[in-house]
Amino acid sequence: MPGSFAEHYGPWALIAGASEGTGRELARLIAAEGVNLILIARREGPLAELAQALRAEYGVECLTASIDLAAPDSFAKIKAAAADREIGLFVSNAGADPNGSHFLGKPLETWLELVRRNVMSAVECCHHFGGKMKERGRGGILLMNSGAAYGGGAFLATYSASKAFELCFAEGLWAELKPHGVDVLTLVMGATDTPELRRLLGEKGLPVPPGTASAAEVAKMALAQLENGPVQNWGQAEDEAGFAPLSAAGRRARVVGMGEASRAFFGES
Amino acid sequence: MPGSFAEHYGPWALIAGASEGTGRELARLIAAEGVNLILIARREGPLAELAQALRAEYGVECLTASIDLAAPDSFAKIKAAAADREIGLFVSNAGADPNGSHFLGKPLETWLELVRRNVMSAVECCHHFGGKMKERGRGGILLMNSGAAYGGGAFLATYSASKAFELCFAEGLWAELKPHGVDVLTLVMGATDTPELRRLLGEKGLPVPPGTASAAEVAKMALAQLENGPVQNWGQAEDEAGFAPLSAAGRRARVVGMGEASRAFFGES
Repeated sequence: MPGSFAEHYGPWALIAGASEGTGRELARLIAAEGVNLILIARREGPLAELAQALRAEYGVECLTASIDLAAPDSFAKIKAAAADREIGLFVSNAGADPNGSHFLGKPLETWLELVRRNVMSAVECCHHFGGKMKERGRGGILLMNSGAAYGGGAFLATYSASKAFELCFAEGLWAELKPHGVDVLTLVMGATDTPELRRLLGEKGLPVPPGTASAAEVAKMALAQLENGPVQNWGQAEDEAGFAPLSAAGRRARVVGMGEASRAFFGES
Repeated sequence: MPGSFAEHYGPWALIAGASEGTGRELARLIAAEGVNLILIARREGPLAELAQALRAEYGVECLTASIDLAAPDSFAKIKAAAADREIGLFVSNAGADPNGSHFLGKPLETWLELVRRNVMSAVECCHHFGGKMKERGRGGILLMNSGAAYGGGAFLATYSASKAFELCFAEGLWAELKPHGVDVLTLVMGATDTPELRRLLGEKGLPVPPGTASAAEVAKMALAQLENGPVQNWGQAEDEAGFAPLSAAGRRARVVGMGEASRAFFGES
């Protein structure tokens, strides 16, 4: 890539879902490149703390905004937080999963919120910021993703569906924006050592499994591969195939297997 | 399958997107099984005409409701149309594609409407009707799908994303509901001879390509395979793999190829 990271993806990056885990690590790496940051998440406390650390350590400007991406007015608030700053990099790192819930075991509103957070918000932000990037002929869009994008299963119907949306959406955006100098990547993560994973494991008294990636490693790969979209899969080489079969019988067998694994992890519910 | 179609999937079926094409053919086949129908689509005229024909030909009850699935109040209207009737089969056959548009070439609202129509509405209806089916220990959910579910490309970023959502969502629902006697299938259609396809081809002065499936054939397969979910692919055997590669390089090559095919069909825009 000719030119520096900041020339391509600066002067401002906006991260939706920045308070911890991979979002936090992405913020650190982007700040280290001299790009200013707008950090968005629900909880103001961790954001403010992170912003202060990044300002002190890297001398970048760093704004925060407490926004619930699932709220109907989140897009208006995100636009207001960005105001007329030139956002050269948009990162979608939200997408919490009300882990281990049957679709019918939660009220409908739980799933509509998940769709607003993982689907609607990404569509809105990519249209808004992507449009401006296309006009400028440069920029980057990074949608952090999950292996659940490759197929559904019990306990994760809506979550995996929202991640599959993100996968194909990123592919379409990449095809349309890459010729205009805008990079689009969806990074399909595997098991990653985040506070969220530790909370989940902690509830069950389980240790972090060996082979779990660190959030810092994953963030580093995401930025290093930003220009090699539309999809990169954590832990897989460019030409290495993943694990989603494509026949009706193959998909069914995989769905059953995922359900068994989920049940073993989350327990029956 | 022991027991008749009507015993499994009656006494009422609700079809969202019933006015023409596969929706219309599904309505006809379901009525022929002696199941009453609630037909939903935007245009009241074709619905009323279809309902009258089905009542006369098959002696079933047939209600219609003019509802735009993209409208924020569509779910309330669908629930009102169903009222306290026992819906044993829910069919989602909506999902129009503002064909051949770049994501940035249309206002954001176009894509939010597509998400509300293809994603939100399906989530709402599956939660509502699926919940009642689970309580009764029988029923069926059929989500009509498209090959675009297996990967994105230029001109169809949001559309293919919404179909990928449907694919994984159906897989998760199937895993959770099948043990409770509720069948879930997403039928991945190929090129199908519908009024919509003919309109598209007609605009370009193109004939219907050889090998295009008839809407009646596709509808017949969908109902015949309803108990063999979660996914069936039109024109493929159970164990026959489709065309979506899984490596980063493979997906990229496919995205590029799809873009070239779309460009040839829709023209540059």
